[in-house]
Amino acid sequence: MTTARQLHLGAFMRPVSIHTGAWRYPGAYPDANFNFGHLKRFAQKLEAGKFDAFFMADHLAVLNMPVEALKRSHTVTSFEPFTLLSALAGATERIGLVATASTTFDAPYHIARRFASLDHISGGRAGWNIVTTSNPDAALNFGLDAEVDHGERYDRAREFYDVVTGLWDSFADDAFIRDRESGLYFDPDKMRRLDHKGEHLSVRGPLNIARPPQGWPVIVQAGASEPGRQLAAETAEVVFAAHGTLAAGQAFYADVKGRMEQAGRNPDHLKILPGVLTVVGDSVEEAREKRALLDSFVHYDSAIASLSIALGHDATGFDPDGPLPEIPETNHSKSGRERTIALARRENLTVRQLAQRLGGYGGLAFVGTPKTIADEMEQWLTERGSDGFNVMFPYLPEGLNDFVDKVVPELQRRGLFRREYQGPTLRDHLGLPRPANRHFA
Amino acid sequence: MTTARQLHLGAFMRPVSIHTGAWRYPGAYPDANFNFGHLKRFAQKLEAGKFDAFFMADHLAVLNMPVEALKRSHTVTSFEPFTLLSALAGATERIGLVATASTTFDAPYHIARRFASLDHISGGRAGWNIVTTSNPDAALNFGLDAEVDHGERYDRAREFYDVVTGLWDSFADDAFIRDRESGLYFDPDKMRRLDHKGEHLSVRGPLNIARPPQGWPVIVQAGASEPGRQLAAETAEVVFAAHGTLAAGQAFYADVKGRMEQAGRNPDHLKILPGVLTVVGDSVEEAREKRALLDSFVHYDSAIASLSIALGHDATGFDPDGPLPEIPETNHSKSGRERTIALARRENLTVRQLAQRLGGYGGLAFVGTPKTIADEMEQWLTERGSDGFNVMFPYLPEGLNDFVDKVVPELQRRGLFRREYQGPTLRDHLGLPRPANRHFA
Repeated sequence: MTTARQLHLGAFMRPVSIHTGAWRYPGAYPDANFNFGHLKRFAQKLEAGKFDAFFMADHLAVLNMPVEALKRSHTVTSFEPFTLLSALAGATERIGLVATASTTFDAPYHIARRFASLDHISGGRAGWNIVTTSNPDAALNFGLDAEVDHGERYDRAREFYDVVTGLWDSFADDAFIRDRESGLYFDPDKMRRLDHKGEHLSVRGPLNIARPPQGWPVIVQAGASEPGRQLAAETAEVVFAAHGTLAAGQAFYADVKGRMEQAGRNPDHLKILPGVLTVVGDSVEEAREKRALLDSFVHYDSAIASLSIALGHDATGFDPDGPLPEIPETNHSKSGRERTIALARRENLTVRQLAQRLGGYGGLAFVGTPKTIADEMEQWLTERGSDGFNVMFPYLPEGLNDFVDKVVPELQRRGLFRREYQGPTLRDHLGLPRPANRHFA
Repeated sequence: MTTARQLHLGAFMRPVSIHTGAWRYPGAYPDANFNFGHLKRFAQKLEAGKFDAFFMADHLAVLNMPVEALKRSHTVTSFEPFTLLSALAGATERIGLVATASTTFDAPYHIARRFASLDHISGGRAGWNIVTTSNPDAALNFGLDAEVDHGERYDRAREFYDVVTGLWDSFADDAFIRDRESGLYFDPDKMRRLDHKGEHLSVRGPLNIARPPQGWPVIVQAGASEPGRQLAAETAEVVFAAHGTLAAGQAFYADVKGRMEQAGRNPDHLKILPGVLTVVGDSVEEAREKRALLDSFVHYDSAIASLSIALGHDATGFDPDGPLPEIPETNHSKSGRERTIALARRENLTVRQLAQRLGGYGGLAFVGTPKTIADEMEQWLTERGSDGFNVMFPYLPEGLNDFVDKVVPELQRRGLFRREYQGPTLRDHLGLPRPANRHFA
């Protein structure tokens, strides 16, 4: 048994793929976002690959993009996370199940109940991805005229977290006696009302479900802003990060783990897992060709809009099949502009190829052989850029199968990833402690 | 193929059993409300018995009863309906899945999404039991100081129904083209925003999930009040009724079906299914003994409180082991008092037995052999007291197995109940039409 750090791997499933061209890829299932059978087989395959968790993103509106882009995107329809993950709980045995739920547009009593229920049903495999929902279209679906202010959303999120975790602690772990002889079902001294009255929330409790098997389902967050990092350092156990380079990842990693120490928490009790798109080939060249083919399915209109945003410059007049012309300096973010220009030059991309790259997925990507991908993952782990990754698959099922069948064994050979699950719960997979009950020692 | 009316049977599952003594019954699972494996086997058994639906009640608080009664009740903890039914969707193939959700303490966008998602995941087996939640303890868990007024709850429920069904119609059934060649995922002319601005709700839409396989999940209601009956007549497709006698059932049946005709609806498009506790024995005597044993597990303190309420008279001073004494008239409901006295005389019950009967389950019960239970069900069906039943099992698993293994075959022999499911959806089981899309003909 090794004591070296190992990677933690979540599978980030956003309706079908993060990549809007994914449904057109040869062999892809264009209806995976309608078809529970497909998603069940994906989850079972990820479990065979010993993934820590199946991670379901969420949006509380049709994604706000121009209809010309929207009509080409499979992201317009998606299963709701709780119904999907609960159904997957019945179809899997060990993999963690992380659902996204909003602190801005839901009630803490509902959220506490559902995650507790998912944790009971799955035998301790639930995780809650706390989001505050910045999408203004979501506000319009929930009776508000405009987006809730950022600072207020984070204030409420912090209080919401306190209420939900407090509700999970409504019963002591040993409250339920079920003594047939005396007729006592539970010990009322081991049930506690919350009686919370705060700035944003008023919740009496107790919750009407026993304490979750994990004590609390695992707390996941993705906020990168100043209040987002602070909330993560105080409360999160997994952070979904998004950094395009190792250097940026290292800076974030050091910052959040440092904030944890200041908040009196053990930095090992939070796993930082950046999202990464993985494209696997038998050669690096083949992997790049696969990605180029995938990017070619992004419609030019939406692609060029992404390029204009990245450059801070209207790119619609450029020759699609020529090289990227010189771009004058603007007061737009210099780093984004320079990164985009450098990408075009490095990979010798035409304007169309560059635009489709950004319109497909512009974030961190490992594109290569199982060996080169394992090399990159190993470097991020050992050089403290992350504790693992939230892996995104470029197309389904092939991209997922490639990762599980080819990359995972390479990581296992190197001792960087588990060969078997060590325990039944998501906390076991992530090496996280079980929280004490705040009311009952 | 017969064209005669047949019974529709739902299984009403309230945490474990409606009966608070159920967990103490010999052979019962005292932990069924914690144990997904048990509930999975119950659902699979009900499906083998060709039940129309598995019906999950709900409460948004720990049930408000005195702690002396609460601590003896398994109802204190329960799975949340959506997580449970979604998990059961993955473990069953045909049985309908009816979840309770509140129009007072939830948002229509959430409710519309979850039921649409459950309907997609289950292949068209979802039903929504609309409740307005009168429990004042629930209000305290959702930031309110007091219960919402009855009339306002029903006003909001009616508007909530319009919004949810409107959101389900966000996309035409044939909106999703998924044409790989052109890259068109859906036809934007077949997506519609709701743009609802009403008295209680403001919801823009569209919903971010395709139209449910059933068009709309089946609408279920239980309201017996004047506004409850009217809401049912206008909107419901199944009504969960609660009447202690055939005569009362017939009056309700005629009233609601008459209101439907006045509202321009076909009375066949709503199925009235009263709740009934069933206790099966090899002889009527044995069934009665089983029930007496079950009732004996109700604690005397909670039992006597139920008796006092039924009589409108404090019963705590009565001799528990004597017969019911003469009760002076009060201004309390005369019919409830007389019914209770008549029950005691008819079955020659002691005060203790009478109290435990009411404290266990005081509503409609069929206690007898498979033949006598089938006789009663047949009479209710043919004499228009109901279109079937929501069956409640006195203890689990035995009470459920008895019904499926013994009563169902007797009903099938008489041609009163299906031998096989005729279609895949809950609407097929119930003989209900698929609603037209209100935006797209």
